[in-house]
Amino acid sequence: MIIDCHGHYTTEPKDLHRFRKEQTAAANAKDKAAMPPRSGLKMSDDEIRESIEGNQLKLQRERGTDLTIFSPRASGMGHHIGDESVSREWTEICNDLIHRVVTLYPKNFIGVCQLPQSPGVPPKNAIAELERCVKMGFVGCNLNPDASGGYFNQPPMTDKWWYPFYEKMVELDVPAMIHVSMSCNPNFHTTGGHYINGDTTAFMQLITADLFKDFPSLKFIIPHGGGAIPYHWGRYRGIAQDLKKPLLKDHLLNNVFFDTCVYHQPGIDLLFKVIPVDNILFASEMVGAVRGIDPETGNYYDDTKRYVDALKISDEDRRKVFEGNARRVYSRLKNKIPASR
Amino acid sequence: MIIDCHGHYTTEPKDLHRFRKEQTAAANAKDKAAMPPRSGLKMSDDEIRESIEGNQLKLQRERGTDLTIFSPRASGMGHHIGDESVSREWTEICNDLIHRVVTLYPKNFIGVCQLPQSPGVPPKNAIAELERCVKMGFVGCNLNPDASGGYFNQPPMTDKWWYPFYEKMVELDVPAMIHVSMSCNPNFHTTGGHYINGDTTAFMQLITADLFKDFPSLKFIIPHGGGAIPYHWGRYRGIAQDLKKPLLKDHLLNNVFFDTCVYHQPGIDLLFKVIPVDNILFASEMVGAVRGIDPETGNYYDDTKRYVDALKISDEDRRKVFEGNARRVYSRLKNKIPASR
Repeated sequence: MIIDCHGHYTTEPKDLHRFRKEQTAAANAKDKAAMPPRSGLKMSDDEIRESIEGNQLKLQRERGTDLTIFSPRASGMGHHIGDESVSREWTEICNDLIHRVVTLYPKNFIGVCQLPQSPGVPPKNAIAELERCVKMGFVGCNLNPDASGGYFNQPPMTDKWWYPFYEKMVELDVPAMIHVSMSCNPNFHTTGGHYINGDTTAFMQLITADLFKDFPSLKFIIPHGGGAIPYHWGRYRGIAQDLKKPLLKDHLLNNVFFDTCVYHQPGIDLLFKVIPVDNILFASEMVGAVRGIDPETGNYYDDTKRYVDALKISDEDRRKVFEGNARRVYSRLKNKIPASR
Repeated sequence: MIIDCHGHYTTEPKDLHRFRKEQTAAANAKDKAAMPPRSGLKMSDDEIRESIEGNQLKLQRERGTDLTIFSPRASGMGHHIGDESVSREWTEICNDLIHRVVTLYPKNFIGVCQLPQSPGVPPKNAIAELERCVKMGFVGCNLNPDASGGYFNQPPMTDKWWYPFYEKMVELDVPAMIHVSMSCNPNFHTTGGHYINGDTTAFMQLITADLFKDFPSLKFIIPHGGGAIPYHWGRYRGIAQDLKKPLLKDHLLNNVFFDTCVYHQPGIDLLFKVIPVDNILFASEMVGAVRGIDPETGNYYDDTKRYVDALKISDEDRRKVFEGNARRVYSRLKNKIPASR
């Protein structure tokens, strides 16, 4: 079985975009009366089926993957838009939509939720939505280290500000993928600058602190192959050493995992050379940030299964990357899908 | 000849730190009367000699490099501290100190200047200092894409706001290393988060625009091996393609170069696999961000010459990386050092 741990619903029914546009306009105008009613949303099962079958499901079939851990569009979370109530309504709508996809295609998708984060609002306020989604069968969440959308003006993820949320994650036994959303800072291209910087930033924050002493069973996935981290693995090992921290494998790698969203063979080769195989989860983020075909290979950039297939690793290691590690990290999967083999 | 294009004076005489501490305190207190006088600085030639001979010069000898392109401590630029006048005074002092090092050791060091940038102040205000330094024999500058120290609240580097400075760079025929300074944002560790993010951000900004159509001979060096860029080279090629930009090699690689400050062999291997050898300049950033010995190799993390020596590349390519590319990019070097061989 091949589990893709990083997929977003980026082909949503068009009325969702109409709603969000109106909601954003009302929020920006601070005009509560102009807020579109949730009940006005028109997204039929047929529309959802069409959007999924012609895209993610088709690509699953073509590329030979089985199950996608599926969450709302990451850039669409837009936690900086409006206030907490705007973020909460939008988040509930997006998560409910994921639940509908999972209900329609229970063998192909399993849910991960976005959270109703908002600038300056304590992460503990997102606990209720996490609980609601886990009750619906979701197996994890996407946690945004920067609700401001590119200004990073909240406490780092190692600050006690985040602790109540981590306590709930541990209690519910769900991991978080650390994933920023759209950038509203003109310095940062969303998927090319802000995403990768968010990954690098989060891991470096974890190096400087001792978060996993306080939460030994807390689990984070750093997407996009860990941002810049594996490429600079020597730098990060050296910085940890200068900071008198333990070896990174002991300091962080019982709790932190990387996905394989790296869109060329040399990058995947490097990832597997420096990061232990137990810490790597297969993922493609399709349909996502990069949609074209690589003229150097003739294949889709984000068809990451090809790069993993090309690795000279043992069958056992390949099974870990494709399935075993995801089952271990997203441990609630065991209630949802039977073990293969 | 082996040219290290990225070295900072990180072992400065201690009175420089005393001055900066007092200057910072006065700036923060907005107390002009408390500003320390520049004339009070006590840094003898003997002190400078001692600081260099026991450190950078010793390491040059031990590691077998010949010439370091040398600039003030990058984290010390601190453009966010005080106002433009504070930044200007501090910058002049730091650049004058580099000039003294170069004057004492003309065979071993050549100067690159910091700039008197300041939050919200147009880059054109840094032209006078660039001209002053070039007159003193400096061959380039370090340009900070984020004078705020981690909040990125100025226009991106492709904005016309920067153009007058680029015009002067072209006129003087000097390149810029794009290098952030210390982070005052608790989310970003300076050398582990902010530096690498700054590199990635800058390159991504360049992808989205057409800066080099306006400045065909403008040259930038992205340090720290290009941040996350080479590891995600497929992602960046794909994003450029989705944005209908030319191939990156045509779009940016006539003007953008990467250094070799990547502190482990797999990272250097990847860099050379994906980036054309003509775009790679040897560098170590010693004595810099990572000062320890890698327990996996028994060598200093930042002894990057070992990694380059271990590459299976032709002698001609090695000469380009060690010398030829630096001479091409820092073209004023030709007036300063005779061609080897």
